Amino acid sequence: MSIIDYSPQVAVLLPLFYVGWSDSVLSPSEVELIQAKIQKFEWLTDEDKALLNTWSNPNNIPSQELMQAWVKAIRSTAAQYTDDRQSLVDLGIEMAKIQDRGADNTWLTDHVREALEEIESAIGLESLELHRGILDQQQRERESQAKAEDVKFSVEKLQALLDDDYTEVREKVYTLLKDPIFEYQNLVNKSDYREQVLQWCKILADYGYGAMAFPEAYGGQDNMGAYCAVFESLGYHDLSLTVKFGVQFGLFGGSVHALGTQYHHDKYLKDIGSLALPGCFAMTETGHGSNVRELETTATYDATTDELIINSPTPSSSKDYIGNAALHARMATVFAQLYVNGEHQGVHAVLVPIRDEKDQVLEGIEIEDCQYKLGLNGVDNGRIRFNQVRVPRRNLLNRFGNIDENGQYSSPIESLSKRFFTMLGTLVGGRVCVPRAGLSAAKSGIAIAVRYALKRRQFGPDQEPETLLLDYPSHQRRLMPLLAKSYAIDFALTELTNRYIKEDKGEHEMREIETLAAGMKAYSTWFTTDALQECREACGGKGYLAENRFAALKADSDIFTTFEGDNTVLLQLVAKGVLYDFKKEFAGGGFMKLVEFAAGRFVTSVREKNFLAIRNTDERHLRDVEFHLEAFRYRQRDLTVSVGQRLRKFMSRGLDSYHAFLRCQTHLLEVAEAFIETQVLESFVEVIERCEDKELKKILKQVCDLYALHTIEGHKGWYLEQEYLSASKSKAIRKVVDKLCKLLRNNARALVDAYGIPEECLAAPIAMDK
Amino acid sequence: MSIIDYSPQVAVLLPLFYVGWSDSVLSPSEVELIQAKIQKFEWLTDEDKALLNTWSNPNNIPSQELMQAWVKAIRSTAAQYTDDRQSLVDLGIEMAKIQDRGADNTWLTDHVREALEEIESAIGLESLELHRGILDQQQRERESQAKAEDVKFSVEKLQALLDDDYTEVREKVYTLLKDPIFEYQNLVNKSDYREQVLQWCKILADYGYGAMAFPEAYGGQDNMGAYCAVFESLGYHDLSLTVKFGVQFGLFGGSVHALGTQYHHDKYLKDIGSLALPGCFAMTETGHGSNVRELETTATYDATTDELIINSPTPSSSKDYIGNAALHARMATVFAQLYVNGEHQGVHAVLVPIRDEKDQVLEGIEIEDCQYKLGLNGVDNGRIRFNQVRVPRRNLLNRFGNIDENGQYSSPIESLSKRFFTMLGTLVGGRVCVPRAGLSAAKSGIAIAVRYALKRRQFGPDQEPETLLLDYPSHQRRLMPLLAKSYAIDFALTELTNRYIKEDKGEHEMREIETLAAGMKAYSTWFTTDALQECREACGGKGYLAENRFAALKADSDIFTTFEGDNTVLLQLVAKGVLYDFKKEFAGGGFMKLVEFAAGRFVTSVREKNFLAIRNTDERHLRDVEFHLEAFRYRQRDLTVSVGQRLRKFMSRGLDSYHAFLRCQTHLLEVAEAFIETQVLESFVEVIERCEDKELKKILKQVCDLYALHTIEGHKGWYLEQEYLSASKSKAIRKVVDKLCKLLRNNARALVDAYGIPEECLAAPIAMDK
Repeated sequence: MSIIDYSPQVAVLLPLFYVGWSDSVLSPSEVELIQAKIQKFEWLTDEDKALLNTWSNPNNIPSQELMQAWVKAIRSTAAQYTDDRQSLVDLGIEMAKIQDRGADNTWLTDHVREALEEIESAIGLESLELHRGILDQQQRERESQAKAEDVKFSVEKLQALLDDDYTEVREKVYTLLKDPIFEYQNLVNKSDYREQVLQWCKILADYGYGAMAFPEAYGGQDNMGAYCAVFESLGYHDLSLTVKFGVQFGLFGGSVHALGTQYHHDKYLKDIGSLALPGCFAMTETGHGSNVRELETTATYDATTDELIINSPTPSSSKDYIGNAALHARMATVFAQLYVNGEHQGVHAVLVPIRDEKDQVLEGIEIEDCQYKLGLNGVDNGRIRFNQVRVPRRNLLNRFGNIDENGQYSSPIESLSKRFFTMLGTLVGGRVCVPRAGLSAAKSGIAIAVRYALKRRQFGPDQEPETLLLDYPSHQRRLMPLLAKSYAIDFALTELTNRYIKEDKGEHEMREIETLAAGMKAYSTWFTTDALQECREACGGKGYLAENRFAALKADSDIFTTFEGDNTVLLQLVAKGVLYDFKKEFAGGGFMKLVEFAAGRFVTSVREKNFLAIRNTDERHLRDVEFHLEAFRYRQRDLTVSVGQRLRKFMSRGLDSYHAFLRCQTHLLEVAEAFIETQVLESFVEVIERCEDKELKKILKQVCDLYALHTIEGHKGWYLEQEYLSASKSKAIRKVVDKLCKLLRNNARALVDAYGIPEECLAAPIAMDK
Repeated sequence: MSIIDYSPQVAVLLPLFYVGWSDSVLSPSEVELIQAKIQKFEWLTDEDKALLNTWSNPNNIPSQELMQAWVKAIRSTAAQYTDDRQSLVDLGIEMAKIQDRGADNTWLTDHVREALEEIESAIGLESLELHRGILDQQQRERESQAKAEDVKFSVEKLQALLDDDYTEVREKVYTLLKDPIFEYQNLVNKSDYREQVLQWCKILADYGYGAMAFPEAYGGQDNMGAYCAVFESLGYHDLSLTVKFGVQFGLFGGSVHALGTQYHHDKYLKDIGSLALPGCFAMTETGHGSNVRELETTATYDATTDELIINSPTPSSSKDYIGNAALHARMATVFAQLYVNGEHQGVHAVLVPIRDEKDQVLEGIEIEDCQYKLGLNGVDNGRIRFNQVRVPRRNLLNRFGNIDENGQYSSPIESLSKRFFTMLGTLVGGRVCVPRAGLSAAKSGIAIAVRYALKRRQFGPDQEPETLLLDYPSHQRRLMPLLAKSYAIDFALTELTNRYIKEDKGEHEMREIETLAAGMKAYSTWFTTDALQECREACGGKGYLAENRFAALKADSDIFTTFEGDNTVLLQLVAKGVLYDFKKEFAGGGFMKLVEFAAGRFVTSVREKNFLAIRNTDERHLRDVEFHLEAFRYRQRDLTVSVGQRLRKFMSRGLDSYHAFLRCQTHLLEVAEAFIETQVLESFVEVIERCEDKELKKILKQVCDLYALHTIEGHKGWYLEQEYLSASKSKAIRKVVDKLCKLLRNNARALVDAYGIPEECLAAPIAMDK
């Protein structure tokens, strides 16, 4: 005992010291922290302090001999010790008791334990791993504890949760897709492919899926929720079909429905729903995609003939990339600047016939084929030009702006700007649907990659079977966070859809939905792109063969980040929506209000960022939903407040708002991302709270933990910059993410099965034993 | 003056306080730091200290009235002050002098200034921005200072630098590619496409480009460097052509050249170089791609007939994805497990005829077409099976393992394992070339996106022209770091090539090259994938049209991350190479040596992580190449040491090395990445050091700064965890990256022009005014 002749008060610290030194070399701040703490312990004698100081001197680390003596003492204590939930502190206390045999240990108060636990958490989670190594007799228990986290859940019940209220209609669509007529074709020639997709669309229309969202009077079921579910389900089959379907029924039909009035509904909706009247949605122009307000096409009212004249005045005013336009559409909803009696009334939509019943392009109209695209070659995109094309006045979709029989313009909405945003707002359905089809593509890719990784082996230990790809930590790291995020996005999109399809939404709710839809569209379509790339690579050469679907999934979904609003532009809209709410809180308060808020913010952050929470590396804390929600919300709030301050600063220096926003652009994009992430997490948490099945709740919590912690890990640079996380906590999060990836690996197959993707859509011969 | 009745000693601190409070709310650690410093200033009276303490109390931030009085005083001082390079500290000193009018200011020593500068840098760079706002009369000068960073350089000289020594051969290839016969076809039907690519290959062979790397005796020029340059140049045109070219001349020809001997060279090399003998490289099998050592195809020596019998014993032993195999190859270099007289000699390569002169598949051989792939559809990939196919003994490529006329096997390399790695090592040329063609694809994408962003406008301030895409900060952030990284990778690949083509490399050098090639292949092909995705999105809908090239660039290059070694597998090789060197340093030293090293490491990190450097937010420091190199090297060293310690720890607990490596897999991937990044930065720095043109040096330094800082920013989570960067320094880095993006935007066109990509390869009608 000569080499470790120490007091019980020192003994209590031994396990911490041993692990601190043997695991990883203590960092300067850890040393500093330990030394500072030790100096303050009134229960240590000066002699003890001096000894402990020697042991924490980085220039004179404990000798190997000393360390070996320590570990021997620690092991022998641990061997006598049976409680399997002990920490390093527990162990130290046990050692102190042994060292102090017979004494009363009155110095061992709760206060001492707390102080020790602070040191323990400061050294970081890393220690626990070695801790297990030291106490190998305890290791088995710990492993069985990990096993206790294993969960067997009902795939059917989970699928029902994902299906929301639309299991029946989904099943119907899947049954249809299993029909040989829908067999996936992998056509490369665009003529064949476009024709095939048109035929498929007709079948869907015959079955009533196209009209689903239209009123019953027009052959529909007035069921937007079911329409969204159908759209999402088609995404498992062929995205050209999905997009063509969406163009005809969602965009073209939806614009007539939402922007037109009774006259248009009576005249067109039934034929649109049955595909008797194929149409297109002519909004985007060569020169203006994102900036719809600056479209150049004109619609000029000619009072003499009571007609509207549609015209493309410049080369850049061609309607571009218009789906269905190159071959099949007979009518177009054309967005144009409306002029009535010389007065500009802003962008309006007008129905313009473009082909006759024999599919001949009408006079005054030029249509160019966009030819091959990166993907979606089953959709006939085209470029349309109008040369003074005349249509009857009543072709104006006049819900928000009418020209009466006397040629007088009127609108229920006074402000040009508000009118514009109201019209566009009615079209938000596209942004609700597009990410859902994108998510279907991502889920297909994840399912293929997970299934492959559970079959494919490569490399391994000598004389043993090769290792399954999904048993590689790097492969788990590749796929499991994607799996978790797919669930998170799925639930958030369901919530968005349910809010969207509710009747009688107020203006405020509508604005929130628009912001959320814009954000979710960006967030989830980028996820689709990322996920499919990762999954393709995770399938190696197999993933590159067209028969294994990634070719189509990647190529077809690639444009999702651009159409229905470029993602970067959408996120700026989101940020403005978030700031609008923020600004409202300070309305009228001016600068002082902001300063007060900033002061308040400071106080709040001091409170939130309390020393212990910042450094808390305990797994229970790291997997506490409250920690996740707080961290997400803190990020959103902090970014919002700081961008608000920056904007104010720039404007107070005389910058106009356009340039002030430009200066803060990347900051605004972060605000938007943080907002969406918070919404996604909140949706997920609500789903878990509502869930009554115990096993389901358990697996969902694991999935949600991974989503939350992986997201926080992705922003760890920011959190560390904000001093919201300590270095040791950040490292501990990485370990828990690793652990969760490993944990979910055990249920990976069940989790992708619960997507409910029809086997036909995944039945690619990707297995090596085909 | 009542409200700001302060001493000169307080005045000196005023600008710091004002900016600290008004810009962004001070963080807790900043407050702590300031308070701690202030307490130590012996030149402050107790009264001063008390006042300053009040001002830095976060629960009682200065009133708006007080702040306004401060700014008034600061502004009036600044107005009298003409030196345009002043900092906040300079300004404070000036204010103190004014306040102290007539006094001698002896307290204002250099020591005081240093202490103040420490506070200034702790508050962070953010302050300087507002600082400019306060002193608007100085702003113009500062802007002109930024202008001084503008640089006009010679595009031709920069292109020459990128071209290395191969301008002439590149120009020749470009001239050929401009010939109408090479017009880019965008063929979608694979039969047409494959035929076209074959014809192109024949033309290249006719011009002598195929044989370039072969000895002169066989129609070549013995010029591997020129071959690499040709390969890279073809990457601008069509990657199917590049890959087909590489399969025929690089892989098939290269294997005969490197693994065969005189007999094979005499018999085949000339015909391979002229494409009279089309061949393929049959290594990968359905069951084993990455793990070549476990290939299942067998080559069994039959002494009775003096033949080798090639056989595919299992379904998973089919040679898979073999380029040139589905249609055109007449001979294959087949990798198989060699058995001679019942003894297993490991993987060897054997030449096996697979088609006759009429392109009929020979007996005993089955070939299946891999059909359509995600991309590269101009290459005829196929699956080959051998059913007891007999070839003469001499078809064994026998440089590293021979069977003599008596049927006896011998090899100059005793160890089976070493023999295997030596053979594979000779094929490293593929890994040197592949990333270069990938980089060509990335550069094409970047050039297209930059040119588009300099034409396309969208949104803008009222009544003014819309804003150019490249003037959006987010767009600069998207493209400029990619532009910088393309240069960094380009120089590093050139250095790799030059090391590779050097004669008489020692074993150590060869091993280093193999490690570097594996790493560069992974690093740069992932860059290609990322860059093309970003650039496609940056071109919006235009980027999705096939005519604008992203479709082909993305699809064709996607497999680059998988073939010639899966990137994840390669990075593990790299990590093992790095660890091998690391281990050598400790050979024989055992555990104690490691502990000593760890202690040394600790001392080193304390030295490196000195308080000032960690918090230094000065732009000169942030753009100092020494800081960049130190940060990169620190990361590499720290990750290597820590993974070494973890491996040792796991093994000391009884884990075998396979499982220990598995446990550390994601850590090892980081080691590899850090190693490669350090190599890339070092190459770049060397290029700049060697560069004698002043303007060129200047622009290269800007580009290198952006590469270095953007990379550090990407790892900021890690650096913050390591406490290698303070939060304020991390934030300052972001600002400098923003600034560099803005700066490079001015030379973006010149920088992409210097790539030297033939206009024909970029002449897509992407401009809206086509």
